[in-house]
Amino acid sequence: MEVKVAGVSTTKFGKHTDSSARELFSEATLNALEDAEVAPQEVEGVYFGNFNGEFSEHQGHMGAMMSDYIGAREAESMRIDSACASSGVAFREAYKAVAGGFQDVAVAGGAETMFIMGTAKATDALAVAADDKFEVQAGLTFPGLYALMARAHMREYGTTREQLAEIAVKNHEFGYNNPYAQFHKKIDIDDVLEARMIATPLGLYDSCPITDGASAVVIVSEEYARENGLEANVSVVGSGLASDSIALQDRDSLTYTPATEIAAKKAYEQAGVDVADVDVAEVHDCFTIAEVLALEALGFYAPGEGGYAAVEGETKLGGRIPVNTSGGLKAKGHPVGATGGAQIVDITEQLRGEHPNQVDGAEIGLAHNAGGTVASAAVHILRRD
Amino acid sequence: MEVKVAGVSTTKFGKHTDSSARELFSEATLNALEDAEVAPQEVEGVYFGNFNGEFSEHQGHMGAMMSDYIGAREAESMRIDSACASSGVAFREAYKAVAGGFQDVAVAGGAETMFIMGTAKATDALAVAADDKFEVQAGLTFPGLYALMARAHMREYGTTREQLAEIAVKNHEFGYNNPYAQFHKKIDIDDVLEARMIATPLGLYDSCPITDGASAVVIVSEEYARENGLEANVSVVGSGLASDSIALQDRDSLTYTPATEIAAKKAYEQAGVDVADVDVAEVHDCFTIAEVLALEALGFYAPGEGGYAAVEGETKLGGRIPVNTSGGLKAKGHPVGATGGAQIVDITEQLRGEHPNQVDGAEIGLAHNAGGTVASAAVHILRRD
Repeated sequence: MEVKVAGVSTTKFGKHTDSSARELFSEATLNALEDAEVAPQEVEGVYFGNFNGEFSEHQGHMGAMMSDYIGAREAESMRIDSACASSGVAFREAYKAVAGGFQDVAVAGGAETMFIMGTAKATDALAVAADDKFEVQAGLTFPGLYALMARAHMREYGTTREQLAEIAVKNHEFGYNNPYAQFHKKIDIDDVLEARMIATPLGLYDSCPITDGASAVVIVSEEYARENGLEANVSVVGSGLASDSIALQDRDSLTYTPATEIAAKKAYEQAGVDVADVDVAEVHDCFTIAEVLALEALGFYAPGEGGYAAVEGETKLGGRIPVNTSGGLKAKGHPVGATGGAQIVDITEQLRGEHPNQVDGAEIGLAHNAGGTVASAAVHILRRD
Repeated sequence: MEVKVAGVSTTKFGKHTDSSARELFSEATLNALEDAEVAPQEVEGVYFGNFNGEFSEHQGHMGAMMSDYIGAREAESMRIDSACASSGVAFREAYKAVAGGFQDVAVAGGAETMFIMGTAKATDALAVAADDKFEVQAGLTFPGLYALMARAHMREYGTTREQLAEIAVKNHEFGYNNPYAQFHKKIDIDDVLEARMIATPLGLYDSCPITDGASAVVIVSEEYARENGLEANVSVVGSGLASDSIALQDRDSLTYTPATEIAAKKAYEQAGVDVADVDVAEVHDCFTIAEVLALEALGFYAPGEGGYAAVEGETKLGGRIPVNTSGGLKAKGHPVGATGGAQIVDITEQLRGEHPNQVDGAEIGLAHNAGGTVASAAVHILRRD
């Protein structure tokens, strides 16, 4: 069954300490349903990504909660946790439900409320994406884990702090034009290099922020879209999901993320496209080094070459593959469980020609959402009809 | 695509304070794979149910962890939380993956480690299955919520404590013969009625225990089973999942659980069977009243009549519909995220004719897994080929 993206929306990303996850997700979903011109009671499946609800709101079982709050009380629902890839995986499950002929209308997305925890508790809550027994109890947090990957990349390939800094500069420039982004502040290389160190070699501007927000994507079967006269002109043509060991120590290499490569290979094959066909991509840049790792594992760059992308301008507008035109996790923000869904929102807007940082003539877009130190990776390819 | 159950297993249910979720789930899965005669690296999808990992082991992102620990590191994976229905929903997602043609071999199940938290912390952790803002902060815990439902059923239909007690007696009798059950202790009506009160009218023996354990089910496509000569003679013929408001206060009735009825209707229709065709059922008896509510919503009894089932012996061996021959959540135990998978294990053993409380000639079995106060309900129907 062919799958169409019918409606998309995110809340403003940023600080929403007066709103709970149910409020943020309802806002995003009702706007996405309005965008799709689909009534809430038409929704048959709710695939909800959330990572830290237990810690932030003392709330689990959010799938059922969300199906009710968006106006589809009886729908099939679930909460999916694949750490920072939660809503990328939720989108994958929604895709399977519609593509497999089980449902005609599904909502995928997520929500996260992080600010309410404060930085220390949020850092501790995020750490449950790593291996508690073998990483966290040894003192590692996520900045530390990605710092290890960055150091290894530097040693192995000569990647520099300046190259990483260019990624932050680029993503802040993109975020500046995105009304839904958390940060609207252009920065330069020196801002990045002189910012306080978080976990050497990653400084404050190499790291994504703490963010509240929600995302929602309404997908429908081609048949439903036709019968209901929906203007759904973006198709999901490739979908891949793969895993890796949750602990870095169990891997052969710190500079290679096979889960991304495997998921991407599945998505490319299904879509019948080559990496060179992709016009625009959202990739998981929780830290600047993560964008490098993603570009390499997705096949945009050879191993070790990803550091040159931003410096050479190749991932900016007008470059060969504009990356994170939303601002990315770095500047748009990273409401963990909402991030993968938000990437689909941005890619859809690009393919519709409605993006604030529009890539001229974008026809094929890619979304890459990673969990933990890429122990989970979801890759989706969308195409303008 | 037709879906076959190829292998099943659970750990012993009970106290496993020396084991983590990854150890319990690996044990169950490796045994299920051996039962199936399928190698771990054949597994393409891991659908893992878990509810309280953040609180019990400071561990989220368990899908990726489990795919690695069972020997299928690169497989598609996710952790699903639908509260106490987590692995019923995980089984549904695995089913969709195979039935929809996305995968040939998938593992569904779950694990939970509860004892490590102690009773007070576990009660608090379980409470995140309810609506924190509108129920838990008002002082409600799960025994309290189900006590409200029991009281309403008593007032509305005249259901008695003695009728509920018969359910506990029956399920303990079944558990006595199940080597994997937490309790091997027969009880009588007086034991139940005289036990200390937990939340009026539900006493200690009306309530399921705190349990550690894991379950795993290997499902395969009919084609894969045939090509690999597997002895997979149980088919998944019906699958339904539905939701309700997470908060009791938002419902029209405290004695009716529509999520179960809707999920069951979908499963019956897909299977082409009537409730009268079902030979054996595992239903979600987290409290004795929950078995009554399930029997009514599944259609085995008319509203208000479920209380007579155990008293009349109709849900015992030789009765018209033996229910919870495993011992149920009551006596087998309730390792939250593992429970739905364990129900599929028991039904499969019944249909294979290998159950310690065998129902003679069982051909069609039903598994009903509920989350929260039945805000989520998954119903599956299995058939012996």
